Amino acid sequence: MSLRDSLLAGETLFTAWSGVPDALTVEIVAAQGFHAVTLDMQHGGHNEDSVLRSIAPVIAAKKHPLVRIPVGRFDMASRALDFGAEAVIAPMVNSVDDARRFAAAMKYPPLGERSWGPTYGFPRHGKGDAADWLAGSNQRTLAFAMIETRAALDALDGILETPGIDGIFVGPSDFSIAWSNGAVMDSTLEDMMETIAMIAERVRNAGKFSAIYVVEPKIAGRVVAMGYQLLAMGSEHLLISLGAASLINSVTASIDAERL
Amino acid sequence: MSLRDSLLAGETLFTAWSGVPDALTVEIVAAQGFHAVTLDMQHGGHNEDSVLRSIAPVIAAKKHPLVRIPVGRFDMASRALDFGAEAVIAPMVNSVDDARRFAAAMKYPPLGERSWGPTYGFPRHGKGDAADWLAGSNQRTLAFAMIETRAALDALDGILETPGIDGIFVGPSDFSIAWSNGAVMDSTLEDMMETIAMIAERVRNAGKFSAIYVVEPKIAGRVVAMGYQLLAMGSEHLLISLGAASLINSVTASIDAERL
Amino acid sequence: MSLRDSLLAGETLFTAWSGVPDALTVEIVAAQGFHAVTLDMQHGGHNEDSVLRSIAPVIAAKKHPLVRIPVGRFDMASRALDFGAEAVIAPMVNSVDDARRFAAAMKYPPLGERSWGPTYGFPRHGKGDAADWLAGSNQRTLAFAMIETRAALDALDGILETPGIDGIFVGPSDFSIAWSNGAVMDSTLEDMMETIAMIAERVRNAGKFSAIYVVEPKIAGRVVAMGYQLLAMGSEHLLISLGAASLINSVTASIDAERL
Amino acid sequence: MSLRDSLLAGETLFTAWSGVPDALTVEIVAAQGFHAVTLDMQHGGHNEDSVLRSIAPVIAAKKHPLVRIPVGRFDMASRALDFGAEAVIAPMVNSVDDARRFAAAMKYPPLGERSWGPTYGFPRHGKGDAADWLAGSNQRTLAFAMIETRAALDALDGILETPGIDGIFVGPSDFSIAWSNGAVMDSTLEDMMETIAMIAERVRNAGKFSAIYVVEPKIAGRVVAMGYQLLAMGSEHLLISLGAASLINSVTASIDAERL
Amino acid sequence: MSLRDSLLAGETLFTAWSGVPDALTVEIVAAQGFHAVTLDMQHGGHNEDSVLRSIAPVIAAKKHPLVRIPVGRFDMASRALDFGAEAVIAPMVNSVDDARRFAAAMKYPPLGERSWGPTYGFPRHGKGDAADWLAGSNQRTLAFAMIETRAALDALDGILETPGIDGIFVGPSDFSIAWSNGAVMDSTLEDMMETIAMIAERVRNAGKFSAIYVVEPKIAGRVVAMGYQLLAMGSEHLLISLGAASLINSVTASIDAERL
Amino acid sequence: MSLRDSLLAGETLFTAWSGVPDALTVEIVAAQGFHAVTLDMQHGGHNEDSVLRSIAPVIAAKKHPLVRIPVGRFDMASRALDFGAEAVIAPMVNSVDDARRFAAAMKYPPLGERSWGPTYGFPRHGKGDAADWLAGSNQRTLAFAMIETRAALDALDGILETPGIDGIFVGPSDFSIAWSNGAVMDSTLEDMMETIAMIAERVRNAGKFSAIYVVEPKIAGRVVAMGYQLLAMGSEHLLISLGAASLINSVTASIDAERL
Repeated sequence: MSLRDSLLAGETLFTAWSGVPDALTVEIVAAQGFHAVTLDMQHGGHNEDSVLRSIAPVIAAKKHPLVRIPVGRFDMASRALDFGAEAVIAPMVNSVDDARRFAAAMKYPPLGERSWGPTYGFPRHGKGDAADWLAGSNQRTLAFAMIETRAALDALDGILETPGIDGIFVGPSDFSIAWSNGAVMDSTLEDMMETIAMIAERVRNAGKFSAIYVVEPKIAGRVVAMGYQLLAMGSEHLLISLGAASLINSVTASIDAERL
Repeated sequence: MSLRDSLLAGETLFTAWSGVPDALTVEIVAAQGFHAVTLDMQHGGHNEDSVLRSIAPVIAAKKHPLVRIPVGRFDMASRALDFGAEAVIAPMVNSVDDARRFAAAMKYPPLGERSWGPTYGFPRHGKGDAADWLAGSNQRTLAFAMIETRAALDALDGILETPGIDGIFVGPSDFSIAWSNGAVMDSTLEDMMETIAMIAERVRNAGKFSAIYVVEPKIAGRVVAMGYQLLAMGSEHLLISLGAASLINSVTASIDAERL
Repeated sequence: MSLRDSLLAGETLFTAWSGVPDALTVEIVAAQGFHAVTLDMQHGGHNEDSVLRSIAPVIAAKKHPLVRIPVGRFDMASRALDFGAEAVIAPMVNSVDDARRFAAAMKYPPLGERSWGPTYGFPRHGKGDAADWLAGSNQRTLAFAMIETRAALDALDGILETPGIDGIFVGPSDFSIAWSNGAVMDSTLEDMMETIAMIAERVRNAGKFSAIYVVEPKIAGRVVAMGYQLLAMGSEHLLISLGAASLINSVTASIDAERL
Repeated sequence: MSLRDSLLAGETLFTAWSGVPDALTVEIVAAQGFHAVTLDMQHGGHNEDSVLRSIAPVIAAKKHPLVRIPVGRFDMASRALDFGAEAVIAPMVNSVDDARRFAAAMKYPPLGERSWGPTYGFPRHGKGDAADWLAGSNQRTLAFAMIETRAALDALDGILETPGIDGIFVGPSDFSIAWSNGAVMDSTLEDMMETIAMIAERVRNAGKFSAIYVVEPKIAGRVVAMGYQLLAMGSEHLLISLGAASLINSVTASIDAERL
Repeated sequence: MSLRDSLLAGETLFTAWSGVPDALTVEIVAAQGFHAVTLDMQHGGHNEDSVLRSIAPVIAAKKHPLVRIPVGRFDMASRALDFGAEAVIAPMVNSVDDARRFAAAMKYPPLGERSWGPTYGFPRHGKGDAADWLAGSNQRTLAFAMIETRAALDALDGILETPGIDGIFVGPSDFSIAWSNGAVMDSTLEDMMETIAMIAERVRNAGKFSAIYVVEPKIAGRVVAMGYQLLAMGSEHLLISLGAASLINSVTASIDAERL
Repeated sequence: MSLRDSLLAGETLFTAWSGVPDALTVEIVAAQGFHAVTLDMQHGGHNEDSVLRSIAPVIAAKKHPLVRIPVGRFDMASRALDFGAEAVIAPMVNSVDDARRFAAAMKYPPLGERSWGPTYGFPRHGKGDAADWLAGSNQRTLAFAMIETRAALDALDGILETPGIDGIFVGPSDFSIAWSNGAVMDSTLEDMMETIAMIAERVRNAGKFSAIYVVEPKIAGRVVAMGYQLLAMGSEHLLISLGAASLINSVTASIDAERL
């Protein structure tokens, strides 16, 4: 089932967040219990080459491959799709103009201006008839605009009305910095929670999808209740750190128990 | 403090076990609470290039860099040291002849036949006077021979007497396969535990160091009690798997709690 | 003979189209009977690093190295030249402003704003006197603007008049999508052929060079007759696919013949 | 169906022969009409890292991944299996001792001495129960010994009787050099054909599998009639060369036709 | 001591200029007597991946890591900081608007619009408290705007007044091209020296830092006297060329002496 | 002119010594005034992949590509030739048996046992007729055995008589360690100079070529006088170090002069 279809069916989906630009590491992450893997080119270490190479193991593991592009790099939105990504997340979409440029890169005419050439993505997803593939592409691949500043919030309705924008992705850490005018970085800042709930509501009213980064697991239930369906979590930095702590604790406990 | 000095001081040390041949992934592993990182070229994915590149972040994190070479690849033992490894683990040292060839590659004359050329390792460890570096090398760097077959066990005393062999590393999974003649693969096989304890004792009597792979954390206390000082654990496959399970569990628990 | 000189001499030139970001694969492609190799960063997998590394084998094979940059990435146009490219193809040059920005990145002052620093390209092309190299660069390296939308067609005369634009490159697949308003993707769409011929004529009248992607070999004669001199063809995907089909057919035929 | 099962079922299988150490190039080759892809570490450019990374796309394309190791590098035979290869081809197996060492690296005890640690291969083939995986491994993965010298021919019966050797792979180019004592390199040398047929017969009598490199497609029918079931063919050098010639011919023909 | 603190203390600092996108080469450069290493993405070969990987050995060598981004690639300015760079140099800052966009990418709110996510940089610099790290970041990391055209010179005061711009970096080769309207490329062009001195003065008056590329060592004393504190020099191309000439000369002299 | 022909003509040749496994770095080294570049896989960082990729720029710069293999890795000797190396240097050839195994890997039958498959080397050197290439290969490519222990010295005559061994390469650092029984590492140890001269004499008498590593330039004249024709020198570590010292000295001198 495609990412769009799963979201339309009301499912709550987890996407891992990969920041190590290495296809083998991504292969290991893709084997875990997430529904998708997002390759992060903004703050993570992913680059053109690692995205090209890492989408393959995500597809092989039957997970949804997503890519977050760097700020304003809409050329890369098209390329991520050409390489086989099912969705692209664009950071800092702070105006309707940003949203339009993002949508233009994501969608083929007449909706947008994406250029034809899914060199890797078409065969990776099974190939078939090129005309059919072209015809279905605009619907199959999703454009998520990140809302993480006050300007973005002000422009939210316009962004949601932009043809080709399929969903909103909330970056709560940056949003808290913006909300506090640089004073605080707190992804669960209570002050902004009402606004975050309101965003989900306006997205739902616009018939689009809501996604959010879950920095603190404890917030997950609350944002799902607000309507967020796609939850991002867990870079390799976090996964390895959690795993190492757990393993070292177990080993240390065994040693301590023996010593008693 | 060097690896040798820590072991001489009676410390119990944990080494992570890296199988992803990517220096960035190793950098993340090296930042965790292990005392050392072993780059595995036998079953892991490490290769000449990844070992060369990955030793740097281990040293930068002030951890001990170790390398496990492929079976019989003693050329690589020398190279690992040239690249800056503090110890090398050789698998399947099943005879005194194997031990001699391993030691020859690990130690400069007159003890062995290692060739001079620590191109990367010398500057990485701070450089200084080359003559001093040469003079201290044979003691500074440790050769661990793996005991994991019945043949190796039979040859244990000869291996321990081989000049240049600094310690023994037990591979309990392979040992269990050998012990059961291929019938069982169980790193905590009760039947072989007495023998594993006996190995540590003979190693201690020979004035050398004991190391072991800890597949199951629960065995840690027991092997430490036997005298094993260097405990290997946790490939990235395991760390990421533990971390992902923990994270997904936390997120799922939060969602489930909210739904109640 | 430089690419410019060959084109001025009226030659018809074939450029392979490389989409595999690997210098060894490009080395093999460059050994075939093409006159040039274009490294594709828009739909192909080429990136900054692969372009830097792959231009070397193209020059070593005495072929012309060209680079197609991603949409709007004029920073990369300069870099491709710095790495030794003889020409750059910019996709989606849809306005005179796009053409100006492209030319600015391609040409040194006073014609453009390219910054000095041909770190790799200068020695790769034989080095010599830096002043001479600077003096000849604006003429030696060619800027091809892609015409593949209706907007581009409307702006064609202005684009052709933009100082620093040396030629036009027609992307017939995208042009057909644009021509049919997204309904059809057909690089040989009969409806647009008159327009494609007209483009070549206007380019010729402006004293510039015409290039086109030949998706279907059968169209080659027709576009050459129109005046297109540089014909692009054949990604590795196509070359390997044609080669594998040919080889498998020969082997299968031999087996079938024997079975009779 | 596994490679073994297909061979047991009497199928004739084609394996592409990859010499470009790049997972993306291998991905393209694996998408063609071959049943398998062999990654060549002897004369091709594959190395530990490229084998590790390239087996993944072969499995993803539902083809059989094979690896040819360098001469005498039996450490790599085990590693290829750990990375997920279904079969390993060892060149220059010229004696029973060579065959024994190869088999020892390929098979777990008690048949051989392979060490446990299928870090990548186990999850890539779907994972499941480790005990089952261990139990089935010796049968699942195939060891092909190359016969390409007179010494090898003399030792053929002993090699075929070596437990753990599953098949023979004939290298006809080297065999012709050996046959002519260095005078001729001709993979279809008529003089040696009777011997090549005899090899297949003895292999069949020993209940093992026959494979051969098909340098000239025209020989395919004849070797299949002899009993060879696995036919190797077509490095990327050949595939790209055939493809480029075909494409350039078509384009040139179109241009020539138009000019008439 | 941070780069800022060293500059505030009035020190003259040398930065090597790296153009080889390989972390091992950078490791060797970082071991030399420079105070910093600048990874050049404009004319050098550095790319996203090489910057990510090469900052680590620069920090390990206790040198300051700097990055020069490609023209207009302000997305990369943020990424360089996320990867651990202490300063970013932006070429062709020709207007106040350019300066504003550069500063926006370099500084967190409220000064700029940098997004939170120092995935690699935070742990590489020792980690600690995230709130403290955020609070100190805008001051800790430096934004150098390159002045290398007449337009930039005209806008100098506005650029210097732009909040978030910490210093000016003069590119004397490009400046000479601009100064001579494309006629001359001479980094020590006498005509422009007065202006270059004036730039340093205005920068000093604005309380900011001055940096310059020293193409010819003989100019160093003069620019230091003008007030330039950070001197860039020596790509690997130059270092290897100087080293090879020196070595070959010594060897040749020894041979010639012996022959006499 | 081939390496062999230059040596036969009595020329003294300099080979750079590359230890950075990166084709771009090698490209820069190959552009300097050396006659050859040796890629070092024993103490340097070169590996299978970097050798494959780095031979290309050496050939493109019209220099001789040489490879030093790791100890005992004769499989790699064949591969280096397959990739296009003109000569291979094998370290620690301490017995006639070592020499025979090295020669077997270097020469086609009937002289040795090299297997046919110059996949990359044949096209890189211009291709042509395969039969001619095969016929000329044994003479065209040179096998240098390293003499660096007392055992090697004892076996020298036998090594020189081994068919397929074309020359001797003296490793003076290791030789000094061997000579002093591990007490001293001094490539210009006076005690061993007579022996080093004697080696050259015996090599000349055997009609073969002499090569040596020149650690100290001042020794060059003396070893040339002894008959050494191929002088190895200068890893990137040394070249960059010499270059950086030279550059920093020039800059510092300029600053100091201005301050007076």
